[in-house]
Amino acid sequence: MSDFMSDSTPDPVPGAAGSAGRTISSREIRLASRPDGWPTPDNFARAATELPAPRQGQVLVRNLFMSVDPYMRGRMNDAESYFPPFQLGRPLDGGAVGVVVESRAPGLLPGVHVLHGYGWREYAVIDAGQARVVEEIPGVPLSAYLGVLGMPGLTAYVGLLDIAGFRRGEAVFVSGAAGAVGGLVGQIARLKGASRVVGSAGSDEKVAYLTETLGFDAAFNYRKAPVMDQLARAAPEGIDVYFDNVGGDHLEAALAAFRRYGRAAMCGAISVYNVTEPPPGPRNLSLVVGKRLTLRGFIVSDHLDRLPDMIAEMGTWLRDGDLTFRETVVDGLENAPAAFVDMLRGVNTGKMIVRLVH
Amino acid sequence: MSDFMSDSTPDPVPGAAGSAGRTISSREIRLASRPDGWPTPDNFARAATELPAPRQGQVLVRNLFMSVDPYMRGRMNDAESYFPPFQLGRPLDGGAVGVVVESRAPGLLPGVHVLHGYGWREYAVIDAGQARVVEEIPGVPLSAYLGVLGMPGLTAYVGLLDIAGFRRGEAVFVSGAAGAVGGLVGQIARLKGASRVVGSAGSDEKVAYLTETLGFDAAFNYRKAPVMDQLARAAPEGIDVYFDNVGGDHLEAALAAFRRYGRAAMCGAISVYNVTEPPPGPRNLSLVVGKRLTLRGFIVSDHLDRLPDMIAEMGTWLRDGDLTFRETVVDGLENAPAAFVDMLRGVNTGKMIVRLVH
Repeated sequence: MSDFMSDSTPDPVPGAAGSAGRTISSREIRLASRPDGWPTPDNFARAATELPAPRQGQVLVRNLFMSVDPYMRGRMNDAESYFPPFQLGRPLDGGAVGVVVESRAPGLLPGVHVLHGYGWREYAVIDAGQARVVEEIPGVPLSAYLGVLGMPGLTAYVGLLDIAGFRRGEAVFVSGAAGAVGGLVGQIARLKGASRVVGSAGSDEKVAYLTETLGFDAAFNYRKAPVMDQLARAAPEGIDVYFDNVGGDHLEAALAAFRRYGRAAMCGAISVYNVTEPPPGPRNLSLVVGKRLTLRGFIVSDHLDRLPDMIAEMGTWLRDGDLTFRETVVDGLENAPAAFVDMLRGVNTGKMIVRLVH
Repeated sequence: MSDFMSDSTPDPVPGAAGSAGRTISSREIRLASRPDGWPTPDNFARAATELPAPRQGQVLVRNLFMSVDPYMRGRMNDAESYFPPFQLGRPLDGGAVGVVVESRAPGLLPGVHVLHGYGWREYAVIDAGQARVVEEIPGVPLSAYLGVLGMPGLTAYVGLLDIAGFRRGEAVFVSGAAGAVGGLVGQIARLKGASRVVGSAGSDEKVAYLTETLGFDAAFNYRKAPVMDQLARAAPEGIDVYFDNVGGDHLEAALAAFRRYGRAAMCGAISVYNVTEPPPGPRNLSLVVGKRLTLRGFIVSDHLDRLPDMIAEMGTWLRDGDLTFRETVVDGLENAPAAFVDMLRGVNTGKMIVRLVH
């Protein structure tokens, strides 16, 4: 804790002077510099800050869990992406689940759990409209709202069902299948009647997890042999849907494996997040024409209207024990940068979570 | 004529012996060998053949016009594409308009004009179900049913409206815009209220034709400077729809120019038809995610149900003088192979047509 205090002088919070004057001490992680390639510890700074007390319509939330996600890497660059870039010297942000500890908003009583977008900090003062109340499901940790019931879950759900238009009886391939999103894509496909579910992952342990725990029909380690060859063996009759988490040679392999009218949901290209020169695209892209393929990119934040549907359906599967998910939980705000980089490197299995209170 | 006779021994026509015994002499172009790269005259052979007289339910058609199209290049390879490959030693086929000269099919009287799939030959004996009766539109040649009112017209119509989902007020970019399909895409977009229509073509004359005759808002010669730079200048506010006729660097440029939620209709990649090693794909394909783009390939033969809609709407535009089209007409069946290669090399402006009777 004390190393947070010594890192940095507290930043005056805009508007603090106009409130009751009382402030709340909080710690946060800021962007110290922009990475060139892989992020390093130098890119992050720990800092202490003083928050203003909540005003009318606001709540003070103590964060319990925060999320580290691939898309945050893009926000560390100084370029307009699908989210605005993080600002130098300002705290990072992202999904978090917290508990309301002080409220000036009707209906958001202290003790209520909320999902919101002010992660990477201990406390946050937020407008009631920016917080979504979440219900605890018996046997399921609240961190699920950052994973299986949160943006990764929605990404899997919307990508497979709405973007790729998966239908019962089709064969599905998922790259990055041991990740937070990929593992759910495969399971949703299985629960909705896929004829075959194939996944790729970056280690033999993960591959075993896919077939033995998540119920994938086949899986392979993409580091061991060309993806195109391995996919052809794992899905000898071809695929109808490809859920792309990684880009690169996986997409080329999927194009080759597609049957006619195949659809790819393109969901971030983790393989190019940390490269400075983008790799060439797939050499076989012209297959899109002959096979009548559709490649469709999407950003989950465009599809928040589907969150209630997703939580209802996935929540039922969770309660019934039909859906398995795994978290890699790292304790302590100070370890969030390392957790983030580990996630980018694929150290985690399932959703990478940072627990702030334990 | 006599050089047809000397080229080749007539092929016995299967089933001829079982018919009335009378035969019809016809000339045809056969596939003599498969090209490696660009087709050459050696790949084609002229031949004379004897056709059986039509049986019950069949008509004898004399071809007036035949079509040469880019997709035929793919059929010259010995590989399953979206159409079956042409067979060595057998006549080529493709779209043709002819006149019924003998009929054993009710409702298809002699003198009726029909559109059918047995081009590359003087005469064809065809089942009534394989022939579609076409009406002559005043002032419009019958060859229009091979172009503006035929497969190129349907390709433009379906690709722009159904595949790319063009909507009034959007900006459209078309590659190969002086071709049979591209020129129609731009005009349909204009007639349906595009905010901006931009085309690329391979010569300054074609570029002038696009802006001066077809009503494109801007056009450029892709041989003169990088497509990405020229497109950025021609569509400084970006594009919503890209109609891809060529693949390659045009697609890369379109990906860069797309606004959010842009859609590409991918219609054949003429730039790779004659290359033996496919070029790398676009380096910026990951933009598909951030911009939420959709790339969708299609084959016009999947969309024949839209032919009546297209003929009705485009026919009205033609009658009203709202739609301009141009044909490059080559006379004589014996010149069809050269016309085909010229079309692949982009010598034509508008639809390349071979006239068999004049």
